[in-house]
Amino acid sequence: MKTERLIYLPLGGSGEVGMNAYVYGWGREGEERLILVDLGVTFPDMDGTPGVDLILPDITWLKERADRLEAIFLTHGHEDHIGALGHLWKELRVPMHARIFTAALSRRKLEEQGGDSSALNVADVWPAQVEAGPFRVGFLPVSHSIPESSALVIDTPAGRVVHTGDFKLDGSPVVGEAFDPELWRSVAKDGIKALVCDSTNIHNTHPGRSEATVGPNIRELVAGAGGMVVATTFASNVARVKTLAEAGIAAGRSVCLLGRAMQRMVAVSRETGVVDDLPNFITAEEATDVPRESLMLIVTGSQGERRAASAQLSRGKYLGLKMAEGDMFLFSSKTIPGNEAGVIQIMNNFSELGVDVVDDSSGDYHVSGHANRPDLEAMHDLMRPSMLVPMHGEHRMLRRHAEVASAKGIPSVVAVNGTMLSLSGDAPEVIDHVETGRTYLDGSVLVGALDGVVRGRMRMALNGLVVLTVLLDENDAPLGDPWAEIMGLAETGRSGAPLVERIEEQTAAALGRAENKTIVDDDKLDELLRRSVRQVCAEEIGRKPEVIVVVSRLT
Amino acid sequence: MKTERLIYLPLGGSGEVGMNAYVYGWGREGEERLILVDLGVTFPDMDGTPGVDLILPDITWLKERADRLEAIFLTHGHEDHIGALGHLWKELRVPMHARIFTAALSRRKLEEQGGDSSALNVADVWPAQVEAGPFRVGFLPVSHSIPESSALVIDTPAGRVVHTGDFKLDGSPVVGEAFDPELWRSVAKDGIKALVCDSTNIHNTHPGRSEATVGPNIRELVAGAGGMVVATTFASNVARVKTLAEAGIAAGRSVCLLGRAMQRMVAVSRETGVVDDLPNFITAEEATDVPRESLMLIVTGSQGERRAASAQLSRGKYLGLKMAEGDMFLFSSKTIPGNEAGVIQIMNNFSELGVDVVDDSSGDYHVSGHANRPDLEAMHDLMRPSMLVPMHGEHRMLRRHAEVASAKGIPSVVAVNGTMLSLSGDAPEVIDHVETGRTYLDGSVLVGALDGVVRGRMRMALNGLVVLTVLLDENDAPLGDPWAEIMGLAETGRSGAPLVERIEEQTAAALGRAENKTIVDDDKLDELLRRSVRQVCAEEIGRKPEVIVVVSRLT
Repeated sequence: MKTERLIYLPLGGSGEVGMNAYVYGWGREGEERLILVDLGVTFPDMDGTPGVDLILPDITWLKERADRLEAIFLTHGHEDHIGALGHLWKELRVPMHARIFTAALSRRKLEEQGGDSSALNVADVWPAQVEAGPFRVGFLPVSHSIPESSALVIDTPAGRVVHTGDFKLDGSPVVGEAFDPELWRSVAKDGIKALVCDSTNIHNTHPGRSEATVGPNIRELVAGAGGMVVATTFASNVARVKTLAEAGIAAGRSVCLLGRAMQRMVAVSRETGVVDDLPNFITAEEATDVPRESLMLIVTGSQGERRAASAQLSRGKYLGLKMAEGDMFLFSSKTIPGNEAGVIQIMNNFSELGVDVVDDSSGDYHVSGHANRPDLEAMHDLMRPSMLVPMHGEHRMLRRHAEVASAKGIPSVVAVNGTMLSLSGDAPEVIDHVETGRTYLDGSVLVGALDGVVRGRMRMALNGLVVLTVLLDENDAPLGDPWAEIMGLAETGRSGAPLVERIEEQTAAALGRAENKTIVDDDKLDELLRRSVRQVCAEEIGRKPEVIVVVSRLT
Repeated sequence: MKTERLIYLPLGGSGEVGMNAYVYGWGREGEERLILVDLGVTFPDMDGTPGVDLILPDITWLKERADRLEAIFLTHGHEDHIGALGHLWKELRVPMHARIFTAALSRRKLEEQGGDSSALNVADVWPAQVEAGPFRVGFLPVSHSIPESSALVIDTPAGRVVHTGDFKLDGSPVVGEAFDPELWRSVAKDGIKALVCDSTNIHNTHPGRSEATVGPNIRELVAGAGGMVVATTFASNVARVKTLAEAGIAAGRSVCLLGRAMQRMVAVSRETGVVDDLPNFITAEEATDVPRESLMLIVTGSQGERRAASAQLSRGKYLGLKMAEGDMFLFSSKTIPGNEAGVIQIMNNFSELGVDVVDDSSGDYHVSGHANRPDLEAMHDLMRPSMLVPMHGEHRMLRRHAEVASAKGIPSVVAVNGTMLSLSGDAPEVIDHVETGRTYLDGSVLVGALDGVVRGRMRMALNGLVVLTVLLDENDAPLGDPWAEIMGLAETGRSGAPLVERIEEQTAAALGRAENKTIVDDDKLDELLRRSVRQVCAEEIGRKPEVIVVVSRLT
């Protein structure tokens, strides 16, 4: 009989930043009872996923084993940890557990997609534990950049696993629980089997800075400002929103929140009581009556999103408010790699308006929510785990984290999405590879990343398109000339004649020359016409476009 | 009678980084004799210009005045200063002037496009001057990140203008002429009417570092490496290539250059004598016989370009060479904003191979080729111009540069592409706005940025495409059902039936319900069918795609 084992399987988040989804299991091989930690999304871009609305983990493996899944545990409320619940929970239909703030955000996700939020349970904080099959799971407070982040203490028959979630070591996080090393030490006092640990900031070799350190800088900046002050940050960073708002109020300004995400996050913070001393905000309508030197806006769009408040303000009037010469715009945020172009565009728009832009190049107005290398090492030292599994990060981050742990004598291994580890022994051991990937939310449907849908779009975007229609009569003779339409191609090329005319002439000629056996065969005719279109386009405009051939045969 | 005036008109490079093209003119309004400084390109991306090969300035204004254009002067050989010559010189057909290294690179550009390189003159260095109508232009050596960069001393009837080109203040540039403040002071001794000055690094408040400072760091890094060492940098940074190669040789390694741009740049450097002490390089074939611990490769692809040597090596074997566990890859370069995703992908590919990646996050292995703010201020102080025109940079850079100059009492103004200044008076004065823009090289044709070609591609990429074909007989009755083809859309939606079938059913039904006056009218019928397609797609897959309707009427 097979022995029981403790397994770990990332379905998302390992080998990438974002889209977190981690499976733990205990039991005999193939009969393990499972829990899932987090179910997040990642965001599409024009480069690789044009037109896609959202990128979700491919949870096929888990769906096929849904009868063995006990529960889903949510570490915190960031999109890359809970964003897929609305779209994927209905495929799993198991209880969910989260602390109150995370639960409130998750409930909205579920309800937006018509899901059942009654399956969502509000968990108490450690030392309370939730039973889930062979697991007992506790929510251990940890500091991060959203209220109420929690590590999970996962007690298993093989020993205690600590899954850190995203975290930093912050003794003064402004909102929420400070990191409490004594509490963590007490969790570790009887030994930690495995520490499964955030890796995103492993390449930063400076000790992390506390959220509280930006307050004085921001207060000084706002106090010295003349015109309107507008600041952006991640909406979910409620501590930062509080710091910004307090800086505005200290400078005698009325403060207004702009952008739905910002307003929702503050509303949920108040509802759930995670913060009880937020200043009062005025509405956008009220803000239009406030003199600019007495006004501060806190807005969404720190990543340059085209429709967010920051971008709209950079392009002109937004909800009756307009920035002007002498105003200041503060990015109290970092730009996530890939978003630079959008952010820079906004900065230049503001420059054209005469608005002074302050970003975080000085390091004064933003701190990261993740543990840097020295902090990660401090965590290793605090937990003294028997093994370390680097979690959440690109491959290079996981690899470096594993190296750092190994150098201290802690057995470690790189396990990217789909790599199943056994944590039963003295060191993490790769025992299986599972097919994983990405699912795209595209309009209202889920499509597989490899279904060819996006590939088709990319090809049209890169190559342009010709649609060629040919009509054949009952005797397979062409009825008139072929008819061409183009999209995304130059209208005129080398010859100076319209490209569609050149295509129509050349394909008509090709049809005229074609043997009967080609004309009667749909595939051969398609191939002939396609080749003819591509050839004339190569000659005329130096490109070989995508071609759709439609042959209508009268019968 | 109108008085004569000195004008300045950027057609590219002002309001952006890249695509430099600056016009100067002297004469009566509308009769000015003109010169053009630089004619560069900028690079397309999937975000905004999918499928485009190259982005060139729109020189319509200049073409219409080509009879008044005396000459083109080229400051240095970077693509964003000479890259458009091959495509646009034939529209202007005037003499070009450049120093020998820049001329050699420019000649290749012209010849690749069948242009006439006999119009290209090799200029001597300052104090030599080239006559061009009312201008006398001298090439004043300045340090940058490519050999032989030159500022232009432009003597005009209104006084002396210095156009810096791209530059830094480097007393030890490794290759080429050190910045010589005494020479520059002598140029300025009788007064500078206007300093037209590089702005790209105005936001960096640290004094710039010399190219020579990276040598010791790179030597130490390479000396300590065990396996194969591969380094990338901008191919045109011949000084850096030399530094890297010498570090390899000092560590007892044979050095091989990979990538066409790298080999071409080194060949041109040798041909033109700008560097005479480059080490010998081995070929890729020879490199396959060298033990990895005795080998160093210097490769193209510092910006993550998919086809460059670095990307190919990160994906596996390239020209018989393959990186492995224990090897090192050095980015002796910075990542240009917008290229992060490609560079990070390569880093992660290398991580998967077990290759250690060293980038410039420490600041030890790369220095910029542009003057930072303190260096720009030093240049202002050295030149003491009567006015300053910030040139080459995004709007926010030009604006900050103008502020810095104004704060020192030097009259300045922001002039983005298309802004014509008079430099005749005591301060730069905006006297006209000219229509400018971008031209796309797309395959073998030039298309205007606003021609809709790229817009069509973007729409297909974002929305997907449906092609609907309808056949009508002599009596305007449908011959069979409409025929749908899709590209870039999910094959099945909400109903579970194939999307094409649902489209065909719904459009057949719409045709059946249509009044005769709609069916006989091409536009109305197109509109009806298009609306029907978009509606069924919205229901089935939650998207409204692009639609091409082809109606064939038998007559």
